[in-house]
Amino acid sequence: MAAEEEQGFRPLDEASLLAYIKATPALASRLGGGGSLDSIEIKEVGDGNLNFVYIVQSEAGAIVVKQALPYVRCVGDSWPMTRERAYFEASTLREHGRLCPEHTPEVYHFDRTLSLMGMRYIEPPHIILRKGLVAGVEYPLLADHMSDYMAKTLFFTSLLYNNTTDHKNGVAKYSANVEMCRLTEQVVFSDPYRVSKFNRWTSPYLDKDAEAVREDDELKLEVAGLKSMFIERAQALIHGDLHTGSIMVTEGSTQVIDPEFGFYGPMGFDIGAFLGNLILAYYAQNGHADQANDRKAYKKWILKTIEESWNLFQKKFVELWNKHKESNGEAYLPDIYNKPKLLSVVQKKYMTNLFHDSLGFGSAKMIRRIVGIAHVEDLESIKDASKRAECERAALNCAKTILKGRHQFETIEQVVEHIQSFDQD
Amino acid sequence: MAAEEEQGFRPLDEASLLAYIKATPALASRLGGGGSLDSIEIKEVGDGNLNFVYIVQSEAGAIVVKQALPYVRCVGDSWPMTRERAYFEASTLREHGRLCPEHTPEVYHFDRTLSLMGMRYIEPPHIILRKGLVAGVEYPLLADHMSDYMAKTLFFTSLLYNNTTDHKNGVAKYSANVEMCRLTEQVVFSDPYRVSKFNRWTSPYLDKDAEAVREDDELKLEVAGLKSMFIERAQALIHGDLHTGSIMVTEGSTQVIDPEFGFYGPMGFDIGAFLGNLILAYYAQNGHADQANDRKAYKKWILKTIEESWNLFQKKFVELWNKHKESNGEAYLPDIYNKPKLLSVVQKKYMTNLFHDSLGFGSAKMIRRIVGIAHVEDLESIKDASKRAECERAALNCAKTILKGRHQFETIEQVVEHIQSFDQD
Repeated sequence: MAAEEEQGFRPLDEASLLAYIKATPALASRLGGGGSLDSIEIKEVGDGNLNFVYIVQSEAGAIVVKQALPYVRCVGDSWPMTRERAYFEASTLREHGRLCPEHTPEVYHFDRTLSLMGMRYIEPPHIILRKGLVAGVEYPLLADHMSDYMAKTLFFTSLLYNNTTDHKNGVAKYSANVEMCRLTEQVVFSDPYRVSKFNRWTSPYLDKDAEAVREDDELKLEVAGLKSMFIERAQALIHGDLHTGSIMVTEGSTQVIDPEFGFYGPMGFDIGAFLGNLILAYYAQNGHADQANDRKAYKKWILKTIEESWNLFQKKFVELWNKHKESNGEAYLPDIYNKPKLLSVVQKKYMTNLFHDSLGFGSAKMIRRIVGIAHVEDLESIKDASKRAECERAALNCAKTILKGRHQFETIEQVVEHIQSFDQD
Repeated sequence: MAAEEEQGFRPLDEASLLAYIKATPALASRLGGGGSLDSIEIKEVGDGNLNFVYIVQSEAGAIVVKQALPYVRCVGDSWPMTRERAYFEASTLREHGRLCPEHTPEVYHFDRTLSLMGMRYIEPPHIILRKGLVAGVEYPLLADHMSDYMAKTLFFTSLLYNNTTDHKNGVAKYSANVEMCRLTEQVVFSDPYRVSKFNRWTSPYLDKDAEAVREDDELKLEVAGLKSMFIERAQALIHGDLHTGSIMVTEGSTQVIDPEFGFYGPMGFDIGAFLGNLILAYYAQNGHADQANDRKAYKKWILKTIEESWNLFQKKFVELWNKHKESNGEAYLPDIYNKPKLLSVVQKKYMTNLFHDSLGFGSAKMIRRIVGIAHVEDLESIKDASKRAECERAALNCAKTILKGRHQFETIEQVVEHIQSFDQD
C-alpha cells in the first residue's frame, strides 16, 4: 500500500478505541450514549489471523469493533496485506445485509481511514459453526438458513436480476479487492499443486498422497479451469470465503460473517465452500467418535444437511427467478425467455452448470484444507495423527474424484452416496 | 451523460478544428508545423453512424481527426450515446498498438473533454476490407495479418501473460464502457430473438425465417449462454466489433480500426466476428456473380482465408504461450504446468474451448446481420431481393446449425465443409 494511503491510519488500543467510540455517535448510541459510556468494557477476542476484533459492552448494549492491520496479524509485518479488505468486507456485509438481513449482521459504522468497522455483536450462545460441528451439535435450521442466504445474495447480485450497468459498476468496484483474490488463487488453486513452503499435511502418513496431488495431471487440468473461472467470471457478488468458520449459529439463528474476500466471482465458489466444508466435517467425525458417542447419527445429520442445503438452495433460487422473471435482469429478457417450457429448460441448464461449478470449487476447497497452508479445526482437533490421516485421506480421495468427475453427477443425492462410499468407517 | 460531464464539450466544425490543430503541437507537428499549416485542407468523410471523421492534409503530411458526438449521428439526439466511447477507442487503440503496431494505426493525440482523437491517416489505396470483399479482391496476406493481430492482442491481455492485479485493473477501467456493451447485448444477443421495431430482413422472402429464429428455443438457449459469457467473462481486452468493416486493407497492409466497443470480454467474440463476417462475404458471392466473373475462384479464396485465419491464429497463439510460459501469467503457473505433456493437454483444451466460443459468437454475429438492425454491405448490395434472400437464407441456416452444433466441430476444415454444404450454388 502506498505511503500516502497510510495517512491517518493508526492501530487502536483499548484506550484509543474507547475515545473513538465516545466521539462516534453511530457507535456511542448503540451503547446507550451519555452516562452508559462510562460502563464500557472492551475485550479483544480476535482469534483470527488477520484483524483485531473487540467486543465492546456497556450496561445498555454491546457492539463489535473490527480493525484491519496492513499485514497478516499472526505472521507480522513480514506478510503485508492491504487494509482495504476492511472496506470490501463492510461493503459486502452492507450489500448482503440489504438482500438477506436475517442472516447478515448489521454494520453500524465504517471508517475507511482507520479500516475500522462497528457492527452487531453476535451474542452468546452463538458459536462458530465449525466448533459446533466438531462438538457434534445439530442445527436443524442450518440448511434452511444457509440456502436462504445463498439464494438471495447470489440471485439478487447476478444478471438474472440486475441490468448490465449496475452489474459492471459492481464488478469495477470490487475489482480493487484483488489482493484478497490473489491470496485465494495462491492458497486454493496453486500451492496445493506444487511444492511450496506454505504447504503442510499429516506427515509422514500423507506424504505420498500430497505428492500424488502434485503429480495428478488430470486434476491439475481441471483445477486450472476452475482457477480461470474464479478470476474471469463475474457472475455475482460472492462472499468469497463461505466456509463453516465464517458462520455463527445457535439452534435458531445463522449469521454469516467475515466477507473480506467479497468480489464479483462465480456463484459456485460460495456454494462449494459451504458444501465442501460440511463434507470435511463429515469425514472428521470418525476421528471424534468415542464410546460415549459413535457419531453415526451425527454423520447422517451432516449428510442430510448437505442434501437439503443444495436442494433448498436450488428451489429457492429458482423461485426467486420465477418471481422476478419480469425484472431488469439482462441475462434472460422476459420477451425472449418467458415461455413456460423454454424458461424451465433454461433454468435446468443454469442450475446444472451451477451444481457442477459448486462441486468443482467445493472439492478444490477440500483438497487445499488437507495438503495446503490452512487446515480446518474439524480435522486438526483429531489428536491421533494416524487416525487423522485416515480421515483426511478419505476426504482427499473423495474430493479428487468429485472434482474430476463432477459433470457426471446429476443430483446431490448421488454426491452424498459418493461421499459415503469413501467413508472408511 | 450528466450535465457536468458535458462541460467543455463542443462539436467542432472545419474552422474550429483548424484552430484546434494549430494550437495542438502533437497534431500540428504531424502536418509539418509552421508555414505548412497554412496549406491545411479538411474533408469530412464519416460515412458511419456514430462519429465525425475528418481527413486533414497539408503539404507536409496528413492525419485523421475523429470526434464522437453524444448521440448516434444518423438518428440524431433522439438516440443518445456516451461520448466516452471515444476514450475507450483511443485506449484500446493505444494498448493494441503497443502489442501489435503492424496492424494498429498510431494515436497521436486524445482529448477526453472534446472526445477527439488525432490518429494516423490510413492512406489510399487502403480501403475497407468489406468493400474489397464485395468487389472480389483477394488479399493474400489477410489471414496472416489478422491471425497476428488477434494472437498478439488477445494473448498479451489475458491471464496467460498477465498477473491478476494488472488484469483486474484493466477490467475495472473498461467496465465503464458499459453503454457500448449494452448496445451489443441488444443488437446481437436480444433483438434478433424477439419482435423489435429495429429488426429488419429481406421481406417477404425471409418473413418465415425471421419468425423461425424467434421461435427456436434451442437456438435461444444457446444464445443465452453466449450472452452471459459476453457480459461476465473478462478473458482479454477485445476489440469488440471486429467485423470486416473495421479493417482497412491493401494487398500488403492490414489495419484494424474503430475499437470503440473495446472491453475485457471473451476472446471468441473477436475471432468469431472476423470469421463470421468472412462467412457472410462467402454467401454473398452468389449474388455478385455475373457472366464476367462467376466468383467461384473468389469463394475458394474466402474459404481458404477462413481456414488459414483460424489455423494461423491457433499456431501463433500457442507459440506465444510457449514462448512466454515462464511469464507472470496467473492462469497456468510455470511450476505447476510446465511439463511438456501436461502443457500440451492444457493448451489443447484451451484452444478447443476458444474454437467453440468463436464459432458460437461468429454464428450469432451472422444471424443478427440478416434479421437484426444492422445489415452488411456484402448482402445489402445485392439488388435483386429474391437473389439476396437466397444468399441470406443459406447464411442464416448455416449459422443456426453451427451455433447449435458448435461443440461437434473439431477443426476449421470441418466448418468450411459445413459452410459449403449450405451453399445453394
